Amino acid sequence: MYGAGDVRVEDVPDPKIQNPTDAVVRVLRSCVCGSDLWPYGAMPASEQGRRMGHEFLGVVEDVGSDVPGLTSGDLVVAPFLWEDGTCDFCREGLHSSCRNGGQWGLNGVDGGQGEAVRVPQAQGTLVRLPVGEDSALLPSLLTLSDVLCTGHHGARTAGAAPGRSVTVIGDGAVGLCAVLAARRLGAERIILMGRHKDRTDLGRDFGATDVVAERGEEGIERVRELTGGDGTHAVVEAVGAEQALDMALGVVRHGGAISRLGVPQYQKGPMGMDTIMRNITFTGGVAPARAYIEELLPDVLDGTIEPGRVFNRTIGLGEVPDGYRAMADREALKVLIQP
Amino acid sequence: MYGAGDVRVEDVPDPKIQNPTDAVVRVLRSCVCGSDLWPYGAMPASEQGRRMGHEFLGVVEDVGSDVPGLTSGDLVVAPFLWEDGTCDFCREGLHSSCRNGGQWGLNGVDGGQGEAVRVPQAQGTLVRLPVGEDSALLPSLLTLSDVLCTGHHGARTAGAAPGRSVTVIGDGAVGLCAVLAARRLGAERIILMGRHKDRTDLGRDFGATDVVAERGEEGIERVRELTGGDGTHAVVEAVGAEQALDMALGVVRHGGAISRLGVPQYQKGPMGMDTIMRNITFTGGVAPARAYIEELLPDVLDGTIEPGRVFNRTIGLGEVPDGYRAMADREALKVLIQP
Repeated sequence: MYGAGDVRVEDVPDPKIQNPTDAVVRVLRSCVCGSDLWPYGAMPASEQGRRMGHEFLGVVEDVGSDVPGLTSGDLVVAPFLWEDGTCDFCREGLHSSCRNGGQWGLNGVDGGQGEAVRVPQAQGTLVRLPVGEDSALLPSLLTLSDVLCTGHHGARTAGAAPGRSVTVIGDGAVGLCAVLAARRLGAERIILMGRHKDRTDLGRDFGATDVVAERGEEGIERVRELTGGDGTHAVVEAVGAEQALDMALGVVRHGGAISRLGVPQYQKGPMGMDTIMRNITFTGGVAPARAYIEELLPDVLDGTIEPGRVFNRTIGLGEVPDGYRAMADREALKVLIQP
Repeated sequence: MYGAGDVRVEDVPDPKIQNPTDAVVRVLRSCVCGSDLWPYGAMPASEQGRRMGHEFLGVVEDVGSDVPGLTSGDLVVAPFLWEDGTCDFCREGLHSSCRNGGQWGLNGVDGGQGEAVRVPQAQGTLVRLPVGEDSALLPSLLTLSDVLCTGHHGARTAGAAPGRSVTVIGDGAVGLCAVLAARRLGAERIILMGRHKDRTDLGRDFGATDVVAERGEEGIERVRELTGGDGTHAVVEAVGAEQALDMALGVVRHGGAISRLGVPQYQKGPMGMDTIMRNITFTGGVAPARAYIEELLPDVLDGTIEPGRVFNRTIGLGEVPDGYRAMADREALKVLIQP
């Protein structure tokens, strides 16, 4: 990406093992993330550009000397950050704060939207998948990179559980996965706030019991009506706009929690006396996706959940620029890339 | 209180049972709260004034026909809000959001800084204390009204526990009680940020392992030095000023929680990308004091904790205006009123 709206497909040097902890993975499936749309909309023009893509699964082509758990030919998924898996944060399940981890596409690390990727800290980062290259499950397994784990992080940190009600704000792929995760965690009432009917229909399939298309004060009123005036115990904010955060505060029940998953397009948020009187918790953040993969994988493998349904367009590498455009124009919910 | 700096002691009608759920309590001990200092500093002049005081213990003098658990002569403590104890919020332990509760000193309900109080919803509100009127434990038992339970709420919601480190910001009575509560919950490293030596000395007695007198960036640096650069897992913000919240964010570890106990003197707080990348949780709020009294009472009765040490001045009702002044001038930490 060279700037807002300027995505180019270019040849770059083939990735090679640079450190003993590296692996090289040939990408089978990758995708465009909703968070990629923020720079797609606003990145200042840059001569150097930056590599894109942080969600991929593929086949291990080569491993360094210090990656005992992997061999060439393994089919693996990568979480949307790379991490060592051994530092104190990783051991606590907060892989997103790994002391030796980092982001794809920065500092000489490849992006996932390409043919192959050098994976640093491969032992800690990659998770083997017991399927073949032709598995029909690849799209659903790819969501373990980010959107499914991120939705799960939101539902979990907001407190989705049996007996709890949940509102999910945003009908993008993360919001829909938060619905799926909230249902999986046993939440009974799940209200999805979104105004794209094809997406909210998928949200109903994923477990939403109610859909609220209205926004702002009207949307808040509608959720309150549905919940006897109280709002829901848990709220997952999967947009990142300040208006969405205000809605979250409007629909959360006293003592409830708002989990923020969206990339915040604001510096300050509402934390005045009202939030104190009502004991509102703000939680969430960048998901430690790696921490959740083992927990979620079995349900994907046995078809209990089908998060891959968020992909409604499949493209080749050459069409990636149009894939960004399609997602930015809300023409596609989430674009799957098959290099 | 008739306005900033204007506290008067006046005769008002004796409280009487008005509803079957009422009780009348003769006040044995009451006190001035740090939160009373905000209106003491800034309340617009008012002809009508408002009753003050929301912390008291005393003797039941009369009970309505629907207060089966209490009889005249019972010694009781009142939490800083009154509540029915039976609504869904109370049953969940969020008494501060009781559907049939309210604040002392408003809407025809007496304040605690007086000789006697009509207690609405007495059955749900009052807790019997197994001590006599001359017990030396009365000051410590009085802290169950507010500051001990509020400190406990902060320590608990921030996640104080064995193996966890805690920073408490503010050396007022609530901050010191948060130290006591964090220690009681098993936290090992407890850093108290405050600059009044007599108060931080008491904080050390209460369990603080370190004291940081510096504020702002310097204070943040100092806490980071003490914690290997990481900050602490839990932070209790017991001031309410925006600067204190910024400090809290500066000293909290990745994945940690900040519990806000102070009355916020701001509408918006820091919730930008940094809080998302670090998975910071903001929690806390008005303490459901009533929910914690039974849990904390045994430790007060057997002397395991001595929260009453926060009182360093005892006055009669006639001296209440000077009691406010002494607390506002930081001459007294917390003022005990003995009518």
